[in-house]
Amino acid sequence: MTMNVRGYAAQSAKDALAPFRFERRDARADDVVIEILYCGVCHSDLHTARNDWGDSVYPVVPGHEVIGRVASVGAQVSRFKAGDHVGVGCMVDSCRQCDPCRQGLEQYCAQFPTLTYNARDRHDHRPTYGGYSERIVVSEQFVLKLPDGLDPAGAAPLLCAGITTWSPLRHWKAGKGSKVAVVGLGGLGHMALKLANALGAEVTLFTRSPGKEADAIRLGAHHVVLSTDAVQMESVAGQFDLIIDTVPYVHDLNPYLPTLSISGTLVLVGYLGPLDPFVNSVPLIMGRKSVAGSLIGGIAETQEMLDFCGQHGITSDIEIIKMQEINAAYERMLKSDVKYRFVIDMASLNA
Amino acid sequence: MTMNVRGYAAQSAKDALAPFRFERRDARADDVVIEILYCGVCHSDLHTARNDWGDSVYPVVPGHEVIGRVASVGAQVSRFKAGDHVGVGCMVDSCRQCDPCRQGLEQYCAQFPTLTYNARDRHDHRPTYGGYSERIVVSEQFVLKLPDGLDPAGAAPLLCAGITTWSPLRHWKAGKGSKVAVVGLGGLGHMALKLANALGAEVTLFTRSPGKEADAIRLGAHHVVLSTDAVQMESVAGQFDLIIDTVPYVHDLNPYLPTLSISGTLVLVGYLGPLDPFVNSVPLIMGRKSVAGSLIGGIAETQEMLDFCGQHGITSDIEIIKMQEINAAYERMLKSDVKYRFVIDMASLNA
Repeated sequence: MTMNVRGYAAQSAKDALAPFRFERRDARADDVVIEILYCGVCHSDLHTARNDWGDSVYPVVPGHEVIGRVASVGAQVSRFKAGDHVGVGCMVDSCRQCDPCRQGLEQYCAQFPTLTYNARDRHDHRPTYGGYSERIVVSEQFVLKLPDGLDPAGAAPLLCAGITTWSPLRHWKAGKGSKVAVVGLGGLGHMALKLANALGAEVTLFTRSPGKEADAIRLGAHHVVLSTDAVQMESVAGQFDLIIDTVPYVHDLNPYLPTLSISGTLVLVGYLGPLDPFVNSVPLIMGRKSVAGSLIGGIAETQEMLDFCGQHGITSDIEIIKMQEINAAYERMLKSDVKYRFVIDMASLNA
Repeated sequence: MTMNVRGYAAQSAKDALAPFRFERRDARADDVVIEILYCGVCHSDLHTARNDWGDSVYPVVPGHEVIGRVASVGAQVSRFKAGDHVGVGCMVDSCRQCDPCRQGLEQYCAQFPTLTYNARDRHDHRPTYGGYSERIVVSEQFVLKLPDGLDPAGAAPLLCAGITTWSPLRHWKAGKGSKVAVVGLGGLGHMALKLANALGAEVTLFTRSPGKEADAIRLGAHHVVLSTDAVQMESVAGQFDLIIDTVPYVHDLNPYLPTLSISGTLVLVGYLGPLDPFVNSVPLIMGRKSVAGSLIGGIAETQEMLDFCGQHGITSDIEIIKMQEINAAYERMLKSDVKYRFVIDMASLNA
């Protein structure tokens, strides 16, 4: 009825990640059993492993940027077969009944989607364990096709960092003729540059630290603006139809609002919490501007993004690590010492 | 070269409004000379008269909800003739060259529009004086046609309170099938109820004080929610595609954000300043929600709104006062003791 699986887990907020054996369900009729090849390392993994958000249930097996190969499928699965290359992102299920789910917005499921880890399966109520493991079992509806020709390791971060920036770019209609700015150059920010550029937008990176110009341009930025330089900020007043703000900690939004165009929108994708210092409504009202938020993306939209990346040859810039190196990788990630995403080669579990 | 005009002005932040004689320019080729019949009384009038925003230049003749009759027109004026009933709102000019102006968004003119009072004419640099006066001279492009059959006194507040709520209702596509909530039942709020209802939306009033139900329903609300009642607030979680927030002072937006639907927007139209307490980004991100602002509306859009009001017989609920009663009216307005707008009968200047 179950399969025994090897992975890495945190056993408490204080413990480093360490080898862990656990059971996964055998495939239900609609399930795909996936042999995991690569798993990207997201900041959320670290936050959950360490209970930074206070909602962790141990053991925690992190990982929601999963690329693998189909090992087997349940009887009712029609879209996948053994040997297919596939992806799994932040969600493995949702209620599938509510308005958001029926609109393909499973991330906003009225019953809350089933997260890939640190959640409970909607049917058997067993804990969900993520991609830091050799296999995962996921309902077909939440499995993505990996386009041919896309490097599987570099594609892993598309499942979270990619879709998290793609969804607002699409919802707010970035494309030819639009001007997009990106705040922050990390895992999300570097994907936002690549995707906005490939969509045809004119792309600017806002950064607080000099020295990122060359990398930003290589990744797809047409311009780099030092957000600590008042003259540079003034020079882009009223420019941007859309700002994708990827900064994952509390920060002042007010300097960016004057750089939005009339009816422009600043979208937060990285920071959850109070907008401190106070956002001033004057620039909002005087230019019909918006401050918004956006959470990952829906399943159909994720497939659209992967297909787009396949057509444009877009993957994440990654550094491949072994599973055994995860704790050191977390320490480096905390210092932003990664360009731009760690990806675990899951073959290392056999080492 | 000029005409002598009677009106009411504040001579300083401390002075009550009092009779004032001043010069207006003779009509330029594109000007319309308007004999003022009625002028609505907006909170902005009071704030400017008392220098609450620190930018008042005295004497201040307030008034930007003007309805009048065309007395004469300049040589190049083609759309108006003597005897026409017309309106003038918050703007009397703009640069007419920038992108916003060319898009009909004169309120967001890159050079800032010329306000109807407490500003300077773009050509002769003389102060602008508002509608608390017997005549006004305005370029044809900023004069609105009053539809036949609309009560001229009740129509006056449409020029500010009406368009300020109409513009976001239209921009965010309120109509049949959409759910709109309005925060606050004052001059703006009561117009928002009427307009959203006439557009076909399902309309809810949020209010902090019980006892407004009957009036709200009469004005167009289908539901009234007491925003201080947690149970009532919970019952409308996830409901509203659009919230028009007309509250003119600092207030907590956080209780309203959970009542927005996925991808919903809360639009501030009344309060300029820091959003204190901090807006929490969690509901924004977890539902792709936005906090936005909106400022009056463009000239073409104002005409659209007036025409719509003509078709639907919509005017403001007003209390007509004499010009000599303006200072007492300000005191009552500060106590929200008006249902829902004071309008000055300018014939009283002759009393």
